Amino acid sequence: MSYAVLGTGMVGQTLAGKLDALGQPVAVGTRDPGATLARTEPDAMGNPPFARWHEQHPEVSLLPFAEAAAFGERVINATSGIAALQALEAAGAEHLAGKVLLDVSNPLDFSHGMPPSLDPVNTDSLGEQIQRAFPAAKVVKTLNTMNCLVMVDPARIPGEHDVFVCGNDAGAREAAVEMLLSFGWPRQAIIDLGDITGARGTEMVLPLWLRLMGVHGHADFNFHIDRAR
Amino acid sequence: MSYAVLGTGMVGQTLAGKLDALGQPVAVGTRDPGATLARTEPDAMGNPPFARWHEQHPEVSLLPFAEAAAFGERVINATSGIAALQALEAAGAEHLAGKVLLDVSNPLDFSHGMPPSLDPVNTDSLGEQIQRAFPAAKVVKTLNTMNCLVMVDPARIPGEHDVFVCGNDAGAREAAVEMLLSFGWPRQAIIDLGDITGARGTEMVLPLWLRLMGVHGHADFNFHIDRAR
Repeated sequence: MSYAVLGTGMVGQTLAGKLDALGQPVAVGTRDPGATLARTEPDAMGNPPFARWHEQHPEVSLLPFAEAAAFGERVINATSGIAALQALEAAGAEHLAGKVLLDVSNPLDFSHGMPPSLDPVNTDSLGEQIQRAFPAAKVVKTLNTMNCLVMVDPARIPGEHDVFVCGNDAGAREAAVEMLLSFGWPRQAIIDLGDITGARGTEMVLPLWLRLMGVHGHADFNFHIDRAR
Repeated sequence: MSYAVLGTGMVGQTLAGKLDALGQPVAVGTRDPGATLARTEPDAMGNPPFARWHEQHPEVSLLPFAEAAAFGERVINATSGIAALQALEAAGAEHLAGKVLLDVSNPLDFSHGMPPSLDPVNTDSLGEQIQRAFPAAKVVKTLNTMNCLVMVDPARIPGEHDVFVCGNDAGAREAAVEMLLSFGWPRQAIIDLGDITGARGTEMVLPLWLRLMGVHGHADFNFHIDRAR
């Protein structure tokens, strides 16, 4: 199964690297590949530039958003949430139509400093905005409630912890589950929240996640839903 | 340690009943005790009227908000979030000053149907609104991320699961921890999120909590933060 991973930051690198390691053909999408590769400075979070990652993953192609989206049978939105709709517009509705579109991003606005604000909330979510903007895509919101290293290596945290999946198309949710199983997620750790409006809940946990990261001093944790039955 | 529990719904009944069972003097506060006791119908959620609970707990006094708050060395806000500030105004700033004020409520607005909206979000929280409105009270937000039966009986859910505590006064947070320990919470399950702005995160998990309740078909679950270290 070929994948387009949109976004060249830590999340995109981590997901693309995992899929590549699993033997899936991967193209990473960006606005301007030349500009992305020309960057030599670490990003705002201190992560190394994409070019350094790409040297270690030469078999992963870096393409403009539209070419990457055209390449992937599945598309992953790993852009920063605030840029997601614009990136997906550049990817092109025609390259998303009929495909499973996995949205792992969060609509966090860092422009007013820390902590970031989440927008939309309550009656809408970024997952729903994406589904509305690309009605022919099969949007599944998943993996947005954890650090990217945990996304692709759940065993790095001992004990039980969970990943949420929601989307309007049951087959697309099952496709997401397959990918998660290939990442090492146990089936009982994958919680199906039903339709895409479930993204409201999973996006709104970000403020607690960010607070916990501050309290713990690291991002090596995840949510678990402990159930009586 | 005497307690005032403000609110006569399921949450107030459950907390007052637990504190009473632990041998703490408890007064339940309401707007109009006569009107509360006169109610013979179940509430909107189908819970039995307060009068029936009170028959089984005659040693717990039912008082107007101000008298209850004057009685308790500690005060618990167990009103519905949307009524909280009004109830605390009725309790009176002079009866809250210097006291630990435990806020277990969530600012959920059910007036537009299900699911409810959370307001405020992001840059404010009900916990902070209460602290600002009653600056001489020592507000601690806790227990608002779970069903009330879990609040007072964590062992009803097997496995590890957690409770969050935040507030500006470290001594008041420690008082909350003491109460939680007396409810049966293991110390390692009590996560200190620091100052009261942590309430933004714990209130904003409610949409996910409500979604999970719908998916599971029951409220016998709780959040656990699974950590690598």
